[in-house]
Amino acid sequence: MSLLGAIEAGGTKFVVAVADETDPDTVIKRESFPTEDGPKTIKKVQAFFDQYDDIAAIGIAAFGPIDVAPDSKTYGYVLDTPKRGWSGYNFLGAMKAWRDIPYFWTTDVNGAGWAEFVSGAAKNDDNLVYLTVGTGIGAGIIQNGKLLQGISHPEAGHIMMKKHPEDTYKGHCPFHEDRCLEGLAAGPAIEERWGRSAKEIPDDDLAWEIEAYYLAQAAVTYTAILRPDRIVFGGGVPHRENLLPLVRKSFAEQMADYLAVPPLDEYIVHVENGDDAGILGCFYLAKSLVDQSQAQAID
Amino acid sequence: MSLLGAIEAGGTKFVVAVADETDPDTVIKRESFPTEDGPKTIKKVQAFFDQYDDIAAIGIAAFGPIDVAPDSKTYGYVLDTPKRGWSGYNFLGAMKAWRDIPYFWTTDVNGAGWAEFVSGAAKNDDNLVYLTVGTGIGAGIIQNGKLLQGISHPEAGHIMMKKHPEDTYKGHCPFHEDRCLEGLAAGPAIEERWGRSAKEIPDDDLAWEIEAYYLAQAAVTYTAILRPDRIVFGGGVPHRENLLPLVRKSFAEQMADYLAVPPLDEYIVHVENGDDAGILGCFYLAKSLVDQSQAQAID
Repeated sequence: MSLLGAIEAGGTKFVVAVADETDPDTVIKRESFPTEDGPKTIKKVQAFFDQYDDIAAIGIAAFGPIDVAPDSKTYGYVLDTPKRGWSGYNFLGAMKAWRDIPYFWTTDVNGAGWAEFVSGAAKNDDNLVYLTVGTGIGAGIIQNGKLLQGISHPEAGHIMMKKHPEDTYKGHCPFHEDRCLEGLAAGPAIEERWGRSAKEIPDDDLAWEIEAYYLAQAAVTYTAILRPDRIVFGGGVPHRENLLPLVRKSFAEQMADYLAVPPLDEYIVHVENGDDAGILGCFYLAKSLVDQSQAQAID
Repeated sequence: MSLLGAIEAGGTKFVVAVADETDPDTVIKRESFPTEDGPKTIKKVQAFFDQYDDIAAIGIAAFGPIDVAPDSKTYGYVLDTPKRGWSGYNFLGAMKAWRDIPYFWTTDVNGAGWAEFVSGAAKNDDNLVYLTVGTGIGAGIIQNGKLLQGISHPEAGHIMMKKHPEDTYKGHCPFHEDRCLEGLAAGPAIEERWGRSAKEIPDDDLAWEIEAYYLAQAAVTYTAILRPDRIVFGGGVPHRENLLPLVRKSFAEQMADYLAVPPLDEYIVHVENGDDAGILGCFYLAKSLVDQSQAQAID
């Protein structure tokens, strides 16, 4: 029996898992542990996979920024990050030195987005924007069935934004303050702006209208540039039940009938995969490396 | 000798031309005529190409919006447009009925962008944003060597924008007023905002600082989503010599060192192909259909 491996490499926690190559939807074994520095954490990753001789490929979905440009000298490295013990760490190289099998190396949002594309809310689509709104905001973009990247992976949480007329918040982005989506609409921005946790803010509060305005504005911009089949929202913030209906309403107002899009309750939707999305995405990405019948994630 | 055909279908003027299949950079014959309604104009197009028996393929770069989704029932049609006699016209079908050869059917900005990608400012790149700023604003986007599209072609002139703090202009977009790039930064917006033609506005006027702010803001957003190798500006407005240096300066301020990009005088540049860009792009696109050694514009 040949196995697929998954490494969901988060900034606070790592999850590692294996599945049968013929059944990537079923986790055979999983472990998780807190994220330490690069070398210590990867030693635990390797110890987990040491239990298995026959791993066909491993998918890695890593917190960023990471170098995903195949021609780059630092391909496979973690780039500058405030996370201690990770800046400049050769994550992929450490795994290859341990065992020289195929690895699919990508971002955490690309992993979760790919899971939605293969088996979730976008499983019948060719083009997807997957947006996660939590501590930060990031996007995995799939265009014509491939993960989109240019000289590096998207950082689509940092698109420039028009402020809501009633919003006087100074913004939370250390680079762009109140000028980018993440600075205005990520979880910490909501909590700092209103001085309480999102859970304490009632459904009919202006807070949600403002949040929806920003997410809708971003959705209009993604739509104009990428023309996706669907925009799928993941992460903690969109769990709030009242939010996506407000996003759809604001999207209609801001788009003002300029571009034809699918019905909004099909176009702007929640993720379907639950907490397993990251691991599932890794399995699917690993499978795409070994199985030509599976959708190929890259050219 | 086998020929390539080009149809540059503009809203005010059509240009048709042929080139030798082995030398798409050299126009053998060209004609242009004012754009009338669909049927009348296409009759002139066909009369031009009737002179040549051996046309291997024709590239069509058309004013939009057009239907470019291969699976759509109206693939090859011009969609709703204020241009009289064109809404719902089956442009591609009329050409195929005339002569059933391969056609590359795309937007005018994709044609000009593809020319920059093959032989212009982006000839060594894999990923390009080509932005034309004139009567309107449109983008041709090339990602990993292919023209980007989702359920339709990009309309990246209509991304949402933060207003410049000193700009009180009401905006020029009939859909988005002062909320989108085209509404704030296309040629007619400049002239209406300042009550005079762009030519009459001196280099050191606030007008250019505001224009540069919007173009730079858009460039930051495109960069965050697409991570291109280069952003190439075409169209009438960027002809103004003082403009791109101001765009680079504002880009640096707005990006605030968040993402690594190439040196800005290489990253934000002018088109290199002159008035022939549209025709050249059509030849290259036609060639991509018949010649596997040429870069392929689509999957």
